Amino acid sequence: MNALGVALVGHAFMGVVHSQAWRTVGRVFDLPVRPEMVVLCGRRKDAVHHAAARLGWREDSDDWKSALVRDDVHVVDICTPGDSHAEIAMSALEAGKHVLCEKPLANSVAEAVAMADAAERARQRGIRSMVGFNYRRVPALSLARTLVAQGRLGRIRHVRAQYLQDWLLDPQAPLTWRLQAERAGSGALGDLGAHLVDLAQFLLDDEITSVCGLVDTFVAERPLGAGTDRTGPVTVDDATMFTARFGGGALGTFEATRYAAGRKNGLRVEVNGSAGSLAFDFESMNELSFYDATEDAATAGFRRILATEADHPYLRAWYPPGHVLGYEHTFTHQLRDFVTAIGERTSPSPDFAAGLRVQRVLDAVQRSAADHSRWTPVGGGR
Amino acid sequence: MNALGVALVGHAFMGVVHSQAWRTVGRVFDLPVRPEMVVLCGRRKDAVHHAAARLGWREDSDDWKSALVRDDVHVVDICTPGDSHAEIAMSALEAGKHVLCEKPLANSVAEAVAMADAAERARQRGIRSMVGFNYRRVPALSLARTLVAQGRLGRIRHVRAQYLQDWLLDPQAPLTWRLQAERAGSGALGDLGAHLVDLAQFLLDDEITSVCGLVDTFVAERPLGAGTDRTGPVTVDDATMFTARFGGGALGTFEATRYAAGRKNGLRVEVNGSAGSLAFDFESMNELSFYDATEDAATAGFRRILATEADHPYLRAWYPPGHVLGYEHTFTHQLRDFVTAIGERTSPSPDFAAGLRVQRVLDAVQRSAADHSRWTPVGGGR
Amino acid sequence: MNALGVALVGHAFMGVVHSQAWRTVGRVFDLPVRPEMVVLCGRRKDAVHHAAARLGWREDSDDWKSALVRDDVHVVDICTPGDSHAEIAMSALEAGKHVLCEKPLANSVAEAVAMADAAERARQRGIRSMVGFNYRRVPALSLARTLVAQGRLGRIRHVRAQYLQDWLLDPQAPLTWRLQAERAGSGALGDLGAHLVDLAQFLLDDEITSVCGLVDTFVAERPLGAGTDRTGPVTVDDATMFTARFGGGALGTFEATRYAAGRKNGLRVEVNGSAGSLAFDFESMNELSFYDATEDAATAGFRRILATEADHPYLRAWYPPGHVLGYEHTFTHQLRDFVTAIGERTSPSPDFAAGLRVQRVLDAVQRSAADHSRWTPVGGGR
Amino acid sequence: MNALGVALVGHAFMGVVHSQAWRTVGRVFDLPVRPEMVVLCGRRKDAVHHAAARLGWREDSDDWKSALVRDDVHVVDICTPGDSHAEIAMSALEAGKHVLCEKPLANSVAEAVAMADAAERARQRGIRSMVGFNYRRVPALSLARTLVAQGRLGRIRHVRAQYLQDWLLDPQAPLTWRLQAERAGSGALGDLGAHLVDLAQFLLDDEITSVCGLVDTFVAERPLGAGTDRTGPVTVDDATMFTARFGGGALGTFEATRYAAGRKNGLRVEVNGSAGSLAFDFESMNELSFYDATEDAATAGFRRILATEADHPYLRAWYPPGHVLGYEHTFTHQLRDFVTAIGERTSPSPDFAAGLRVQRVLDAVQRSAADHSRWTPVGGGR
Repeated sequence: MNALGVALVGHAFMGVVHSQAWRTVGRVFDLPVRPEMVVLCGRRKDAVHHAAARLGWREDSDDWKSALVRDDVHVVDICTPGDSHAEIAMSALEAGKHVLCEKPLANSVAEAVAMADAAERARQRGIRSMVGFNYRRVPALSLARTLVAQGRLGRIRHVRAQYLQDWLLDPQAPLTWRLQAERAGSGALGDLGAHLVDLAQFLLDDEITSVCGLVDTFVAERPLGAGTDRTGPVTVDDATMFTARFGGGALGTFEATRYAAGRKNGLRVEVNGSAGSLAFDFESMNELSFYDATEDAATAGFRRILATEADHPYLRAWYPPGHVLGYEHTFTHQLRDFVTAIGERTSPSPDFAAGLRVQRVLDAVQRSAADHSRWTPVGGGR
Repeated sequence: MNALGVALVGHAFMGVVHSQAWRTVGRVFDLPVRPEMVVLCGRRKDAVHHAAARLGWREDSDDWKSALVRDDVHVVDICTPGDSHAEIAMSALEAGKHVLCEKPLANSVAEAVAMADAAERARQRGIRSMVGFNYRRVPALSLARTLVAQGRLGRIRHVRAQYLQDWLLDPQAPLTWRLQAERAGSGALGDLGAHLVDLAQFLLDDEITSVCGLVDTFVAERPLGAGTDRTGPVTVDDATMFTARFGGGALGTFEATRYAAGRKNGLRVEVNGSAGSLAFDFESMNELSFYDATEDAATAGFRRILATEADHPYLRAWYPPGHVLGYEHTFTHQLRDFVTAIGERTSPSPDFAAGLRVQRVLDAVQRSAADHSRWTPVGGGR
Repeated sequence: MNALGVALVGHAFMGVVHSQAWRTVGRVFDLPVRPEMVVLCGRRKDAVHHAAARLGWREDSDDWKSALVRDDVHVVDICTPGDSHAEIAMSALEAGKHVLCEKPLANSVAEAVAMADAAERARQRGIRSMVGFNYRRVPALSLARTLVAQGRLGRIRHVRAQYLQDWLLDPQAPLTWRLQAERAGSGALGDLGAHLVDLAQFLLDDEITSVCGLVDTFVAERPLGAGTDRTGPVTVDDATMFTARFGGGALGTFEATRYAAGRKNGLRVEVNGSAGSLAFDFESMNELSFYDATEDAATAGFRRILATEADHPYLRAWYPPGHVLGYEHTFTHQLRDFVTAIGERTSPSPDFAAGLRVQRVLDAVQRSAADHSRWTPVGGGR
Repeated sequence: MNALGVALVGHAFMGVVHSQAWRTVGRVFDLPVRPEMVVLCGRRKDAVHHAAARLGWREDSDDWKSALVRDDVHVVDICTPGDSHAEIAMSALEAGKHVLCEKPLANSVAEAVAMADAAERARQRGIRSMVGFNYRRVPALSLARTLVAQGRLGRIRHVRAQYLQDWLLDPQAPLTWRLQAERAGSGALGDLGAHLVDLAQFLLDDEITSVCGLVDTFVAERPLGAGTDRTGPVTVDDATMFTARFGGGALGTFEATRYAAGRKNGLRVEVNGSAGSLAFDFESMNELSFYDATEDAATAGFRRILATEADHPYLRAWYPPGHVLGYEHTFTHQLRDFVTAIGERTSPSPDFAAGLRVQRVLDAVQRSAADHSRWTPVGGGR
């Protein structure tokens, strides 16, 4: 079996999780090629060296560009903040490397357009690219998509999606890069809202065509770090709320915040259709609630499907029913699909075009917010 | 103990529930006056006669105006569709009767203004009036209000409120008065959204100052009744979504629909503050979820408070802990407070001014919806 | 429509709840006869007089025997402690009155046998009798019985039933009649366990044939009341656990306690069969969980049936879906069935023979507990 | 950092899960020694060779004894059926290898006694041993133990523990080794009940002193495999129920079954004390319910603690709050503690003596079951 050499850029939270997935994927799933963890790239020599040893990478480098010229590297996995996605991804594609890029695809629509164009050109040369919307690979949500696609919900009327966290509850929590527009692009909108938008479009297999939105920043100044009195301005949104229309007529409400006390990673989505409904909360990630409105009224009810059966997506490779999975497994599933697509020379999904579509929706939300929340069409073209 | 003679107008769903509450309230609560169920009023002689006997009213009448001239009637309880609220309420107040009026207060802001003015004039003569926002009297929600008032949630950041039903799921369900604008005023907005708006303003003790909204009608034509092929136009909204800002800075998302398959009476509200959160779903009406963010992280968690303790609002009069209450009890609690206020010569709450405030918010939602969902200030004045 | 005169004996907790049900049943359900609340009986003249006025009884009496000779009394409803059930019930039956008797039927098997014999003799004269196992009339549990009877669970393998309360958690809680064997017969066993045994036999339509059990008393002495240092011995069980075999081969585990901190009225039952399962918790009394094992593994799951649909037992007479019921409604349902049986000259269920069967099971538990928990057959005969 | 060479025996379900844990533990936790996956042992040469490559073991062998003589093997991890535990474990200890042995420790008390004796002798030579009761390492359950130890529950009154699965629901499911007494020792009792007993004793830090139990086999004959008409006898129990007394006075009810339709890995435990309660269900393994009875009645309630905070056991090494863990992580935690104990020359827990105590309880259940469920003291001594 051919080896598939991987270079990972970034070793903070996402880099750690991706490393665990790279170590695991070939041990659990049957893959057409054999991933090899060739090199971990970072900015600080010491830190990346230590991380590489800890996370299981054969080599390390403080220059991601060096990975692009190696023949034993076939994949570049990008786990850096959004402001460097475009440069790394386009360079890697140019160099003929398959690319997995963390979400959001970019910090602006312009960058995302360029990336999607580059990905399309690369695709024509057989180079694959994918955006890391990992929640699509929660088995319960993959199952949800299947149920919608099978028509089990009928015509979709409503989507309501929330991504609720509470890590900014403390006004003294420090000003990290995630709170700076020049690094992160946006706040809850791009970090959390991007997942909601992708997930909703994925579940419905439909696109948001117009939005009406609002962003807000509750705490405008934060300490620059521990042990200092100096503060700096928060330049991203703390929270966003928007409503949306889908091409097929469904209505959507969306909300993302870092101030929902007690909600830790509360990615919640509910879909109502003419024939049934679905509900999901990531904090109980192994469960999908499904209501089948075609059943007798006397026995109809939301079913708690424990998505751990062999017949559920990705589950045949894992453990017996009821032996639940966790957050990291969504990344292992993502790699399983990405590596399989590379090996089988097919296009993985979500591709950069899907990432661009999400970006366009987020952009429309920001434009609406800047214009008295007027209904704003999502930008078209590619 | 003095008698308090009651005339009830209307004997459909709300009339039935109010009757049960009138029969019960004096048997359970200590009241300063003794309610007497004097007369039930309706439009059709036969129907009202039969209903009065069934529901426990001493007399019946097909002319509500006749009740206004009776000396043994002190209270008029209005359970008719919204298009007759203004006339009945203002006539009753004029005649010196205390008035309990079902929500929404009226079908238009103009009517609601007139009603609130009449109520204020009557109040100066010692005549009481109240709007039937019964959900304020769910013990779990009364408790929620108390917790917010005590500062247990800190500064409020978010309210998300949904009222989800599914009784219009079938496109062949007939065109009742609730789907006709001239009778009902609006659809999900006035029927369900009114409860959400009142509840949110009640829980936060704050007012919505501006909104941005949307209304939609999924099924535009419906059969005029069973056994006919003729159809008529649905002239109210099937669903509404709106976002809001409160005077104190909180953000709100609201949604009301009659197309949420599987949600039967899903009035759900969640409040997030800087020190804690609350969550509630009427389908589990005896439970309040409360998160106290000031606790140790290791033992913090949403508590399921079973609001059936003697220390919970209204509960001392009922059963031992865990012997849960139901929907109808909220109406009994409403009457307990209304009758007590009359007996003690105080102003019951929510008064017509509160009903008007709700009406103004709903009106702003409709105006926003008609203007590309622009942010729209809630009309001021009284 | 003929009147059905009722005398109620006892006006503590159960008397209050039965009164509410008597006031309500004819207002909600179509009945073949018209209940009239003739007389409330108690021991203390003042107390019963006050209670009768409050609870809506026309007359009051401190001598229950006086009710038995009245022509306008057709029903005697017994809400006294267990030590007086036998005398009152047998006298009433002898006097030709229909009898509704609170559970447990009696404080001993001998009494229960005599009562069941008397009821059988009375039945032959057209006199009806019933035991107040109100939980059979929870709509979700009536539905559960139907699902089992329809074979939706297949062959039953397991029943696990718990009745968990916590009102004795405080060792300084006073020594009431419920903690004295001469009044109450037993403690958690007769008060709570009786409900479990009846419910299990009802749901399975099967009888417990042998048991193996244990009873325990955690706090042996308690204050005689508030404001006294004197204490007295607790002479009943605080908790009981027993396992059981049913005639049809199912296994059962049962537990009842007054020391389960945080469980307020936690009557929980779960049934597992070869084709499905059911689960119920009274604290969420409007919900039944149902698992259909014949469905596809990919979409099978416990359904939360909100038992508030018109198609659910007793619900057509009440409110729209999702407008939930409470504890007291189970008593209204009980009266609906009792009064209907009287009017239609049929035998209501559960009859005294069913009450006796429960008593025999409780007796076998006590005998097993006294004999090193040996397997003990449930006493036979009637 | 010194290497710690590991030999794993067995590569079925448990071997797969242990392999994933061995691959992961050093990547996530700071360990005093560095685990090396030296050799995988099995019975069939081809199968073990293929498994070793897949699971990440450097070498493979069809003779576990060969591992005992290798200097580069310091740990033997036993994942075989129970009938071989004693031989492998005692040989390994004899050879000076640290031993991790899957539960149940052995198929009989006699074997378990010998193993515990061998482990004690080895301990005196610095050789460590541990039994694989992985559920102790669910963070929510580790937290539960802490809360009990801190006195947050007060004096413990009740434990109710169930382990519910449904994989034998189909009477045509084949006769595997788990259904044969000579391989598995017992059925639900040893496979599932062993976890319950260990968990209860762990949570309470107390020992079961006497039991009263029952075992049953619902389906006595099963097909020998797919594609054959031949059947064989099931020689283990399908289900068991037992009640227990703990040394400290608590009462316990226990149930284990493979016939609870819809329950997939339903390990559930509830503990009630004089000051609070705990509840847990493995199907929602990241959640612990905790009731603090010392709080105000108005705000007391079962809290859903999402055990994913940095302050929760094992969590600091993993992901941010709300990014939930799964089944396999309990094994990673187990290795973290086992390897740390080896490196720090301390005794890991649960040791073989704890495994023996579980075995003695299971044995007492079987003896009680064979003697009309009489109360049976748990065998004493070591």
